Formats: sequence, C-alpha cells, structure tokens
Amino acid sequence: MTLDQLDTPAAVIDVAKMTRNIASMQARMRALGVHFRPHVKTTKCIDVVRAQIAAGAVGITVSTLKEAEEFFAAGVVDILYAVGIDPTKLPRAAKLKRAGCKLKLVVDNPYAATAVAEFSRAEQVAFEIWIEVDTDGHRSGIKPDEDTLLEVANILRQAGIEVGGVMTHAGSSYELDTPDALVALAEQERAGCVRAAQRLRAVGIACPGVSVGSTPTALAARKLDGVTEVRAGVYVLFDLVMHNVGVCTFDEIALSVVTTVIGHQADRGWVIVDAGWMAMSRDRGTSKQAHDFGYGQVCTVDGVPLPGYIVSGANQEHGIVSRADLPAAAPAPTHDMLTLFPIGTKLRILPNHACATGAQFPAYHALSEHGDLSVWRRFHGW
Amino acid sequence: MTLDQLDTPAAVIDVAKMTRNIASMQARMRALGVHFRPHVKTTKCIDVVRAQIAAGAVGITVSTLKEAEEFFAAGVVDILYAVGIDPTKLPRAAKLKRAGCKLKLVVDNPYAATAVAEFSRAEQVAFEIWIEVDTDGHRSGIKPDEDTLLEVANILRQAGIEVGGVMTHAGSSYELDTPDALVALAEQERAGCVRAAQRLRAVGIACPGVSVGSTPTALAARKLDGVTEVRAGVYVLFDLVMHNVGVCTFDEIALSVVTTVIGHQADRGWVIVDAGWMAMSRDRGTSKQAHDFGYGQVCTVDGVPLPGYIVSGANQEHGIVSRADLPAAAPAPTHDMLTLFPIGTKLRILPNHACATGAQFPAYHALSEHGDLSVWRRFHGW
Repeated sequence: MTLDQLDTPAAVIDVAKMTRNIASMQARMRALGVHFRPHVKTTKCIDVVRAQIAAGAVGITVSTLKEAEEFFAAGVVDILYAVGIDPTKLPRAAKLKRAGCKLKLVVDNPYAATAVAEFSRAEQVAFEIWIEVDTDGHRSGIKPDEDTLLEVANILRQAGIEVGGVMTHAGSSYELDTPDALVALAEQERAGCVRAAQRLRAVGIACPGVSVGSTPTALAARKLDGVTEVRAGVYVLFDLVMHNVGVCTFDEIALSVVTTVIGHQADRGWVIVDAGWMAMSRDRGTSKQAHDFGYGQVCTVDGVPLPGYIVSGANQEHGIVSRADLPAAAPAPTHDMLTLFPIGTKLRILPNHACATGAQFPAYHALSEHGDLSVWRRFHGW
Repeated sequence: MTLDQLDTPAAVIDVAKMTRNIASMQARMRALGVHFRPHVKTTKCIDVVRAQIAAGAVGITVSTLKEAEEFFAAGVVDILYAVGIDPTKLPRAAKLKRAGCKLKLVVDNPYAATAVAEFSRAEQVAFEIWIEVDTDGHRSGIKPDEDTLLEVANILRQAGIEVGGVMTHAGSSYELDTPDALVALAEQERAGCVRAAQRLRAVGIACPGVSVGSTPTALAARKLDGVTEVRAGVYVLFDLVMHNVGVCTFDEIALSVVTTVIGHQADRGWVIVDAGWMAMSRDRGTSKQAHDFGYGQVCTVDGVPLPGYIVSGANQEHGIVSRADLPAAAPAPTHDMLTLFPIGTKLRILPNHACATGAQFPAYHALSEHGDLSVWRRFHGW
C-alpha cells in the first residue's frame, strides 16, 4: 500500500526520519557518557521501541502499568514506571516483578513509601524504588534539599527496600524557546538531581542511579556529570511544540496525519478535510508559543510544508484548513486555495504534540524510504 | 467490582443518569412530533446505543465508516454517515449498502455528487444521498438559497440516485449560553433546513427527510414544523461544556473519570492525581466559556461536586487538582486540601467534553444504581 491508497485519516511515521532521530539522540548520550532510557509513552508501539533498543537504549521508561505489561510481554525487561506509585496498583506491579521484570517504581512522599514497605513485607516482593526529585516546580517530586527526601529514603531503608536511584523531569522545558534558557534548565535539572543523590549517599544510601530528562533538556545539556541516565520521549517523532521550543526542524518531524479534502467553504476561504480533533487530538500546545499552528501545519502528501496553511479549526471529524497569515474573512486567496486543494486532494498534517496525536489511532502506518506502508500497532488505555 | 476497587484512571458511566437523559430527550422529540436519530460518535459503545434504540430512536448517526461497520455488525440497520463523503471511501460504503445496511451518505458539493454518481453507475450500487445544508456558517454544507443546492440535486437526479433528504448541524450552538439565543438558533437551523427541502421539492425532488440537530438546539427548539428527525450526541452523557451552555446541571452529567490521589505539592496547594490529559483528553472546551473548569470539575468518589476544586493542569498521566477560586500561590487552603485529599483518595472528575474524554478509553465502566460495575467496550479509530 502507498500513501495515496490509505484510508484517511491515518497516522504516518516516516521511518527514515524516526531512525535518524533515534540515532542522533543515542549518539548524543554516548558522547555525554550516559545511558539512555527512552520514554515510550510517546508511541506505545513495539516496532518503535525495538528500534530504540537496537540503537542502544538501556531500557525503557513508561507512564502506565499497561505499557510495562505490554512491553515486558514483548521482551523488554528493564522498565522504569515514572509516575508516582498509587499503592492500589502494587499488586499489578508485583506480578510484573515476580515474572522477572526489572521494574523500578517511583515515590515522592512518605505515605507511598510506607505503603510500598508494608506491601513488600506482607507480600514478600523485593521492589526497586526510585525517588522522584522536583528540580523545576513543574509537577511532582521532592525538592533536593527538603527533609522529606531523607524521610522517604529512611522508610525504604528500614524496610530493606532497594533505592535504585533518584529521577527528575524538567517538564517546564516545554515552555522555553531559547538555547540559553534550555542550557540553563538542563544544568538546573542535572544539578538538582545529583544534589539529591549526594544527600542520600551522605547518609549511607548507595543510590546508584541518577536519571534526568525531557526532550528539550536532553538536547540542550552541555555536560551531565553525576548523571547515569537520561530519559526523553517525544524526540523519536518530534512535533510542532518541539519545533517552537527550538529543538527540531519541520524536516525532522516524523509523524503526520494523512487527510483528504472533503469540501470547500469558498466565501470563508476554508478547505474542509477529514482530519478533525479526533485525528489531530485536542492538543493546542502551540497556542501559547511564539508560532501558533492551530491544530497542525499543512503539507503536501509528499510531506512538503505549505507555509501559512494550518488546520485553523477542528470538529470531531472535520478539520478546517485556512491561511494563518490572513484575516478569517479575507476573500483574496480563496480561488487559489480551491485550486490548490481540490476535493479529493490528500494532504499531510504535522501535529502539535506527537504523544497526543498518536494516542488517537489504534495503529501507525510506517512509511519506508521506498514509499510502501506497514501497519505498526499501538495500544491505549491503562 | 465497585468504584473503590477500580484501577484508575477509569471512565465511569452512571447508568441511571444516562437512562434519564435518553428518556428525557426521546420524550421531548415525541412531543415535538419528530423522529430521533442519536449521534453515536459520543460513546462508540453498543451498550449505550442499544439503550437509545430501545427508548425509540429511529436509527443512528455516525461520524466514521468504522462506526457504521461496527454498529451494523451489531444489528443497527438505519445509519446516517453525517460527514461529507470522501469519494475514496465509496467502496467501503458500498460494501455496507450491499450487505443490507440502510446507509445514508452526505454530500455538499458537485464534485462529491459527481463522484457518487460515477461510482454508482460503474459499481451498480444504489446509494441514498442526503444533502448537507449550512444554516449557521459553522463548518460545512450548502446555504439554503445557494444555486449549488439545485446543481448538486440535479447531478444526483440525472444519475437516478435517491435524495433521501437534507440535513444540517447548527454546531455554533456550543458557543451560546442564553436560552433566548439557543431558541433563536434552533429556529434558524429548522427554517434553513426546511427552506432547502422546499427548494428541492419545488423542482420535483421528493426530499422526504429533513434532519436537524445539535444537543443545545434539540433541547431549545420550541417547534419543529417541517422537520422529520433530530440528531444529537452528547445529550446522552452531557458534560461541563453543556453545563456552561445551560442545557444540563452537574447532576445530569453521566460521565466521570475516577482517579486516585498520588501526591501533594504542599507549598503550591496542589494535589496530584493519576488522571492527566491522557485520561481527561486535551479538550479545554470550557476555557472560552463563562466558567472555566480547567480539565474538569472535582467530585467525591460518590459523585458529589466539590465547588471550586478543578483539575487546573494536566500532563500525560498527572493531573493537578487545585482551588480555582484562589491565586495559584495562595498558601491558605493547602492544609485543608491535604486533609481533604490524602494520598490514596479516590475522586471523580466531570469532563469538559464527553466525546473527547470517552475516546481516551478502550472501555467504560457502567455503574448501576446498586453500585456495581460492568465493562462496556468502546472502539476507536477509523
């Protein structure tokens, strides 16, 4: 099957671009002297994950136990579940651990640490726990200098539970858009996480792992002294948010949605396509960035961006393509648009956020350099 | 299984509320003297659709051919595919038609009408076509008085294709929030669609069907003279957008996401839950309405709304619960919040947009009046 024969909307991964993104990140990590543990929440697709591991990834990061279960079943053993553990999920985690999965769980508070300790004792499961550190006030974690860090570590130590390491995620990197700010945040992320590890080591807890990362900081870091591994997810496909952050070009974005023109509203300068928000997702991550791409950047079916044309509006199964650089009511380009995009035209749309857009599809269509397509299943749910 | 035993996040349908929503809409349609054809894109769930048909629905409306295929396989025969047909999808539509599905396709332009005519002749398939009418400038369709309406109808007539009716969707009703404005738009929707039917009948095309609808206009219409059927989707579950439009109360919202508290950020007054945007969807439909609910309204696990508490931020698998009525940095309520929401607490979140939130889940958990849960599968994709 080729792009022209595809039922639309469809989520297409350009395999050559994806492969370059994987190789480039892995080479960067090697040069910085750290392991790499990709976050597979972006694709939830074993075909992608196999390529990441083949390139040298030391294991994977997941955002749900379902991801851990699916990828362990597919042969991936070393898995960090990077969301603070909900104690009621411990039985599912224990099942993976007992089956031989090198599963690492994350805690950031005494309550969860105590719950893990009690469950471990009652059920005789030797969990490996990583402590989440907050290095940018973005979301969760314990600040490197808080007393709680040692309190949590002591709860684990007294229960004989292995503290595998500390981990942090400088998610606020998505809000930046200059190289200097990214370099500074990467250093803040590194220094804070290393500081937390040092405090644990000072009280006799080995804490071998120091894990940091987000795609922007992973690509900005100048040195990673004291860090043992980096995590990043969206780098594998990239998207328009990352383009605006300044860490990729259009040409490196490996995910697009193929769509078909199904109508025109000539008086409004609108071209109606069959990729609405159900296909693109409701993610409007570029709306607060310097360049707002609406619901996506329009490209020809061959993937050549058409500057100024975006998906400016979306209903569930209808997308509205229009010129971003012209007022909504401007009649001038209408004739051009209808000529450029006759009904039946296939287009490709670059998404705001690869993690969100991918999640709308049961499968990707992987486009080889020869132009043929394979189906790569992805899963969803918890 | 009961709510407390549920793996989170989970999408729960309160069956009693859903049943009341279905009965109430169906009774309204009977009183207005029209048929009702629910739009099943909201749930994509056969258990919900069976309840809608049992209550008296004359058939269903779908937004994708996959919905048509799934529901036809489950025994639903009368199906309107309410998105302008992409000619490359005609082979899939023909397969359904040949299998006995009373499938109605929609066109709003001469190109698509010609493509249907050519395909019908070449493949000997007797499609039933409805013409889409634009009554509010919202999206697609032909304006009732445009020449294109007769042009399209003539293309179909000359090819011997049945024009089953005209249909319109006043989607701009979602942007309103006063009863008077809704009543006026419902009348505009009715009058425009009836006008289009009259123009077709004046040139000898029977055009038996006149189909209108959106949840807000269906609930606002005072009379529907000349209309034969109404379509609405989200009424079956309702959501916060509909609450802001003014057509439902919190208590009528039948969909919620059950989540667990997994952390606290005491200095910021944040409670971290395991429902992020992957569970709630990225839909921020209330952001431009009078009351912005962030990513959702927080309720106790029993479903009692906690006024002022919303999901104010969301990452993929992390939600941030905070007080909407206090500045982000206000420290005052922190102690209360941590007491109210200890780690491990289960909460229920009312979503902005039921269609978008449901799509994030492979299944609903249907909560009976007795408090027990059943799994209702839903599908996604195209």
